[in-house]
Amino acid sequence: MAQASAESGNERATVASEPRPLGEVSKWDMEADVVVVGLGGGGGATAIEAARAGAEVLVLERASAGGGATAESGGLIYLGGGTPTQKACGFEDSTEEMFKFLMMASGPADEAKVRLYCDENLDHYDWLTGIGLEFKAAFHAEKTTTPENDDGLCYSGSEAAHPFCEHAKPAPRGHKPKVVGDGGKIIAEKIIAAVDASGAKTVPDVLAETLVRRDDGRIVGVVARTEGREILVRARKGVVLAAGGFIMNKEMLAKYCPQMLDCNYPTGTDGDDGRGIRMGMGAGGAAIHMNAAFVTTPFYPPASHVKAILVNEQGQRFINEDAYHGASGDAILNRQGGNAYLIVDTELYAETIAFHPKAAVEETIEDLERALGLPESSLTATVEYFNKHAANGEDPLFHKAKPYLRPLSVPPYAAVDCRKANAIFAGFTFGGLDTLTTGEVLTADGKVVAGLYAAGRNAAGLPRWGGGYASGMSVGCVTFFGRKAGKTVAAAEPA
Amino acid sequence: MAQASAESGNERATVASEPRPLGEVSKWDMEADVVVVGLGGGGGATAIEAARAGAEVLVLERASAGGGATAESGGLIYLGGGTPTQKACGFEDSTEEMFKFLMMASGPADEAKVRLYCDENLDHYDWLTGIGLEFKAAFHAEKTTTPENDDGLCYSGSEAAHPFCEHAKPAPRGHKPKVVGDGGKIIAEKIIAAVDASGAKTVPDVLAETLVRRDDGRIVGVVARTEGREILVRARKGVVLAAGGFIMNKEMLAKYCPQMLDCNYPTGTDGDDGRGIRMGMGAGGAAIHMNAAFVTTPFYPPASHVKAILVNEQGQRFINEDAYHGASGDAILNRQGGNAYLIVDTELYAETIAFHPKAAVEETIEDLERALGLPESSLTATVEYFNKHAANGEDPLFHKAKPYLRPLSVPPYAAVDCRKANAIFAGFTFGGLDTLTTGEVLTADGKVVAGLYAAGRNAAGLPRWGGGYASGMSVGCVTFFGRKAGKTVAAAEPA
Repeated sequence: MAQASAESGNERATVASEPRPLGEVSKWDMEADVVVVGLGGGGGATAIEAARAGAEVLVLERASAGGGATAESGGLIYLGGGTPTQKACGFEDSTEEMFKFLMMASGPADEAKVRLYCDENLDHYDWLTGIGLEFKAAFHAEKTTTPENDDGLCYSGSEAAHPFCEHAKPAPRGHKPKVVGDGGKIIAEKIIAAVDASGAKTVPDVLAETLVRRDDGRIVGVVARTEGREILVRARKGVVLAAGGFIMNKEMLAKYCPQMLDCNYPTGTDGDDGRGIRMGMGAGGAAIHMNAAFVTTPFYPPASHVKAILVNEQGQRFINEDAYHGASGDAILNRQGGNAYLIVDTELYAETIAFHPKAAVEETIEDLERALGLPESSLTATVEYFNKHAANGEDPLFHKAKPYLRPLSVPPYAAVDCRKANAIFAGFTFGGLDTLTTGEVLTADGKVVAGLYAAGRNAAGLPRWGGGYASGMSVGCVTFFGRKAGKTVAAAEPA
Repeated sequence: MAQASAESGNERATVASEPRPLGEVSKWDMEADVVVVGLGGGGGATAIEAARAGAEVLVLERASAGGGATAESGGLIYLGGGTPTQKACGFEDSTEEMFKFLMMASGPADEAKVRLYCDENLDHYDWLTGIGLEFKAAFHAEKTTTPENDDGLCYSGSEAAHPFCEHAKPAPRGHKPKVVGDGGKIIAEKIIAAVDASGAKTVPDVLAETLVRRDDGRIVGVVARTEGREILVRARKGVVLAAGGFIMNKEMLAKYCPQMLDCNYPTGTDGDDGRGIRMGMGAGGAAIHMNAAFVTTPFYPPASHVKAILVNEQGQRFINEDAYHGASGDAILNRQGGNAYLIVDTELYAETIAFHPKAAVEETIEDLERALGLPESSLTATVEYFNKHAANGEDPLFHKAKPYLRPLSVPPYAAVDCRKANAIFAGFTFGGLDTLTTGEVLTADGKVVAGLYAAGRNAAGLPRWGGGYASGMSVGCVTFFGRKAGKTVAAAEPA
C-alpha cells in the first residue's frame, strides 16, 4: 500500500467545478475525438478501446507517468464464471454464482453493471491476457491480503465466509498477475503499453481543471494547466473523466465521507483529490454513494490471526474473523467506533503486515482484560464462550468457518491494538458520478450529460459498500467499464 | 408521525435538474424580488424575513396549503443557552454548553452554523414567541419522544446520556409550543400567519420544476407547473429552494442513502421528493451528507422501557438504552443490521407508541432465549451480567444512567420486536445542498452559485448524524437559517 500526502492533492485555487462557456474559448491548443482525463486503470482501458475503435484519443495525465491508484494496488483483479485460471486450479464457478455474490458484495448494487460485468467476464479475462497479463495457474490457499508470491488465484473477499457463503457458492476469484509481491505496477505497465500501442496519445504533466460547455449543455473540451500556463483541449466526440477518487482530499471527505477522516493511511496517489468528480458535478452530473469506502486495518496475515478473536471496547465479539479484512475494517470503523482488539494466544501471534502494536500481553485472560481496562468479566466471558464452542468446531454467534475455530489456550495472551489512534487504517473512496454501463454521465434526474463520460473512480461502479467489498473489484470494475466508456465515446457523433 | 405514500413524490417526467437557459424564456408569468420554493418551516421563515426587510416575496407551494414536514413534526424546537422557559423551569444553561453539545450531536458538524445558531439562539427564541408561539414554563421529566401534554420543556436528545453527558453539561433544550399532543401543526400555522402578515404572497398548487439560468450562470427564475400548464416566475434578487428532503423518493434513497430504504415509515409529506435538492444540483450546487438520516423505532414511551435492555441477534447489548431514541434507532439500523429486541420483565412492559409486536413471552430468560432462536447462553449471559451490575446501580458496558438501572426480575419476560421486518422504523433525510450560513448555495469547489439560496432541508444544516440527533434540531435549524437566507436574499443586488 502506498501513502501520499493528504494535503498536496488540494489545489483549490486552480479548480473550478463550473464548466467554462464555449463562448469564452478563443482558440484550442490541442484537439482530438476523445479526451481522457487520467491515465490510471480506468482511463487507460478507455483510451485503448476508443483508439482501437478508430478514434483519435488524447490522454491528459497530471503526473509525469501514469498508473494512478491501479499501480498502487495489490494487483488483484476480480474475475470469475469459470476463467482458465480457475479451471486450471480445479475450481468450478459460474456466471450466476458470481452474479449472486457480487450483488450482495456491492451492497446497494447497480444491477445493470453487476449483470454486464458477470456476463462478459470471460471476455474481460481474455482482454487482460491480450494486453500481456499472465495469471499463474496456482491457487494460494493461505488467507492473506494479496499473495506474497506469484500465485495467480486466491479468495480475495468474503466468498467463503458467513453470511456470503450461504448466498452464493464460493469460488476464488482474485486473479493476480504473475509477479512476486504486489501486482498493481505490472497491471499499470501493461495498460500503459497497450495505450501507446493503440495509437492513443498521452500528454503527461497536464492537470485538467475545468470542462468546456457549449450553450446547449454539451461538453466539448477541457481546460487544463501545464508548465504554468493554461491550455484548451477540444474533444470532438467527448470527454472521459477518469481522474480517480477523493481519499486525498480532506475537505471532500468532511462533506461526503466524514468517517474516512479517521483513515490515517489513505491509499492512492496525490491525484486522488476528487477533481474529476467535482468537474462532473459542475456540469450537472450527480455524484452518488459518496459516503461509501473501503477501509482495512489488516490484522492478517499472518493467517493464524484469523483463528484469534476481534473484540470491541465492551469485550464483545462483533464479526466472524474469517470475513474479508475490509469487512472487519468496515465493522471496526463504522460500527464499533473505530476501536477493536485482536485477542491472540502465543501460538497464534506474529507481527501483522500492518505492524499493529500490542496493547497488552498477560499470562491470563483476566489479567489481559484488566490491563486493557475492559469492563470486569467482559473479555473473560467472551473468551470462555468462544473457547467452549470452538472446541466443538462451532461459532454460534458469528459462524466463523470450522478451519479457523480453535480455543485460545496457550499463554501468554496478547491484545493486538486495532484502535484508530494506534493502528494503520488504510482505504479509499467508492463514490463517483452516476453513470450508465456505457460510461455516460447522468444528472440527478437520470438524463445523460451530452459529451461527458466517466470511468475509473470518477464513476460509481461495482463497489458501493465497504462491508461487502472484495479485493480486485476495483481494478476489475475500472478496466471493464473503462473499456465500455471507450467504445461508447468512440462511436459518438462529433459535436 | 405522519406517513405519506413513497411513490407519489416521484414525478420524474416533469422534473429537470438542468436549469433552463434564460434565452429560452420568452415571457414571465409572475415576478418578484425573491421567489421561495416551498412553504414549510424553512421557506416560511425565509419569506417572513425577506418581506420584513422590504423585498417583494413570492412563495410557490406545491400543496394546496403549506406546512411541509414542520407541520408533520412533533413540534419540538431545539433552543437553549438560558431561554426564559429554561430559567422559569429552574435550569441553568449556557451558549457554550449548548455549542459543545451540538458540535458533538451534529457529527460531522458545520462549525460556522453551530456557532451562529448557538450565539443567536436567544434572539431566535424571541423571534418564535414574536410570531405567536408560547412555551409553557413546565418541565416534562418523564422520558418520552414528544410530551403528550402541553409542557413546554424536555430533554429531547442524548444530553443527559453517555457519552454526551461527559462532553457537555446537560440541559433540557426541547421547547414545545403550548398545545396538547404534537406541536408541529401550530408551529406551521403561526409561521404561515406571519408569512401572510409580512406581505409575502403565497401561491398554492404550484409545483416548481426547473431553475432558469442566465448565460453567466446566475439563477434568475423558476419554471413551475400549475393547473396543468407551465408558468415562468422571475426572481429579481434570487431563488430560495426550500422544498424539503428526499425521504419519499426511493430512487434518490437508493443512490444516496440506501439504508433508509428499510425505513418503512417515512416521515414528511408527499413533497419530500428531493426535487429542490436536484434542482440545485443541476445548477452546480453540491449536495452533501446525503447518506445522513434520522431513524427511530421508538421503544419508549412508556418510560419504563428505558429500564429494559436492547439486544442484537447475538443476544448482546449494544447501546445505553437511555440514549435518545434516534441514537438507538441509528444503532439498530446501521450497526446491528436492522434487528434488535427489547427485553422487558412484566413490571416494565406496556405497549409502545409505535405498537411494536411481541416476538415472544416466556417465564424465564432461558426460555425467551430459546423462543427467539438466539444462540445458546447468549441472552442469559447478557441478562445475568446486566442484572448483577444494575443491582449496584452500575452499567459497566454502556453507562446507562442510574435512574434507569434495575435488574430484570419479574416474570414473565417478553421480547419487544424491534426488527425491521416487523416493527415501525420512522425517519427522514438530513442531506442537502452545501450552503453558507447565509443560505447561499456552494458548488463542489466552494464557490457561490449566483442568485441561488437554499433553506429547510434543501440545505445541509445542523443535523448530519442520526446517532447524535436531538428532536427539535430540524425545526430549530430550518427556521433559524431560513431567516438568515431571507435576510441575505432581500439584501442582494437585483439581476
